[in-house]
Amino acid sequence: MSLVVVGSVAFDSIETPDGSVKDALGGSAVHFSLAAALFGPVQLVGVVGEDFTADCHNILREKGVSTEGLEVIPGGKTFRWSCKYFDDMDQRETLTTDLNVFEKFQPTLPAEYCQAGFLYLGNGAPVTQSSVLDQMSGKPFSVVDTMNFWIDGNRSELLELLGRVDALVLNDEEAYLLSGEKNLVRAGRSIRKMGPRIVIAKKGQHGATIFHEAGETALPALPLADVVDPTGAGDSFAGGMMGSLQSCGSVDLETLKVAVAWGTVTASFCCGGYGVEGLLKADPVSLRERFEQYRKMLDLQPVEIPLTSN
Amino acid sequence: MSLVVVGSVAFDSIETPDGSVKDALGGSAVHFSLAAALFGPVQLVGVVGEDFTADCHNILREKGVSTEGLEVIPGGKTFRWSCKYFDDMDQRETLTTDLNVFEKFQPTLPAEYCQAGFLYLGNGAPVTQSSVLDQMSGKPFSVVDTMNFWIDGNRSELLELLGRVDALVLNDEEAYLLSGEKNLVRAGRSIRKMGPRIVIAKKGQHGATIFHEAGETALPALPLADVVDPTGAGDSFAGGMMGSLQSCGSVDLETLKVAVAWGTVTASFCCGGYGVEGLLKADPVSLRERFEQYRKMLDLQPVEIPLTSN
Repeated sequence: MSLVVVGSVAFDSIETPDGSVKDALGGSAVHFSLAAALFGPVQLVGVVGEDFTADCHNILREKGVSTEGLEVIPGGKTFRWSCKYFDDMDQRETLTTDLNVFEKFQPTLPAEYCQAGFLYLGNGAPVTQSSVLDQMSGKPFSVVDTMNFWIDGNRSELLELLGRVDALVLNDEEAYLLSGEKNLVRAGRSIRKMGPRIVIAKKGQHGATIFHEAGETALPALPLADVVDPTGAGDSFAGGMMGSLQSCGSVDLETLKVAVAWGTVTASFCCGGYGVEGLLKADPVSLRERFEQYRKMLDLQPVEIPLTSN
Repeated sequence: MSLVVVGSVAFDSIETPDGSVKDALGGSAVHFSLAAALFGPVQLVGVVGEDFTADCHNILREKGVSTEGLEVIPGGKTFRWSCKYFDDMDQRETLTTDLNVFEKFQPTLPAEYCQAGFLYLGNGAPVTQSSVLDQMSGKPFSVVDTMNFWIDGNRSELLELLGRVDALVLNDEEAYLLSGEKNLVRAGRSIRKMGPRIVIAKKGQHGATIFHEAGETALPALPLADVVDPTGAGDSFAGGMMGSLQSCGSVDLETLKVAVAWGTVTASFCCGGYGVEGLLKADPVSLRERFEQYRKMLDLQPVEIPLTSN
């Protein structure tokens, strides 16, 4: 069961209160791929310019990311984005967005990719995301990400897309915006009625909530003392989650919960360095160690508590 | 091992987007007591005026709360507070605060209470909280709550108090204010250095994080679709937690985690009705059922995930 991701490939310039990085490898498809590659092979579909160096290609390939679907536009320039984080690292301000070759991105999947069992559509125009679904010959387990920009500006196209996918991942603010609800549980339930049978609301340092026909599951994030750069944490979360689902080959609720836990752990590595540095440092030993720490954190020992009935 | 709570007893008037209640029984000591009483006996120390009706006394007593330490000031008027919640129920605005008899509250513990094994000092002036510690003849497991007002205005008295207690519960914004940190883990670690060996940061709908010498533990809240009135949820959380600790008679990390889980479940009942209505509806069956639902939500099944080592 192969895993395909379609999304942005970019060079990010990031300022935080403690430092900065310029033109670091980034973009939703990159963070997703490097996260998912910790669990198994990933096939990346994206577009870059001639400035996307051999080193960048190598970073992806060495980690097990197939770049056959990474289109290089001759004479083109890769998507560039810059942002600045505020003191609490929970909020950021986009400084510049130069879409460059990403502006006219029309993803075309290599024939082999169209059979994928798992498909992740990184944040992008809903019509573009739909065009990828049109190319699939099978019926992959499809997860889509979106953002305020599309919820506000392309609502009907987004709703059409939501009727065709298995799961939507979005952050809590986006869930409120999409649903018009002010309570997260109501928001998630309302979004499930728009189509996706699974909705996953990402809450940054507060973890994630899964909405499923069996009910709601809230899982916390790992408490982190050192958040170097949270850019890409959401896509790393999705990458870890789908990488783990692909490994299991199943998407029942228990497997999904474990997958969200792996996504949470993977995202915590992402936050540990600028750009993709944190993800590149993760290895099976450190990943598994942190997963066990997470599982232990959530394990509630059976303690007999007598209750009164006044 | 008895449990004593010292704090406010009030009549609360609350407006939410969906309704309102006037002069409902409330206050930190009341919410705490009714929550803790679900687990065992509680001894309440507070002050009220002559307007505190026999019905109010009975609500407490019928639930197993001793009111021997509830001073009634002849001709006095009970503390009154009113607030208005915003649309998302996460933020509220205090409309009026009439301290009345609570303004000159000098808690005097009945002799028997001074032997308590567990002591909760609800939000109040740090010097008043310290005066309660002075009255204890034993060395109870002591938990203190505080708020922005005291952190800003009575910092030195608060720091002196923190050197004398076992645990501090406060919300995340207060933890940032007290520590000067912008990251919650750093904030909690910094506050532990001020004295309390345990710090518990309450994050409302996002759950709570425990800071302990063994590390940090983040636990989510129960996902709630219907939050009627979150007033008193923090004190109900503390009441459920300490009620459960008192039942176990131990305060090691595993017991503390389970206690925080019980606190979380108890707080979820508090949110289900105006004032203390939600807590009064909780019974051993519904409480245990919701606890099992919470434990199951956090239980991560062992699923074998192969990891790659590219």
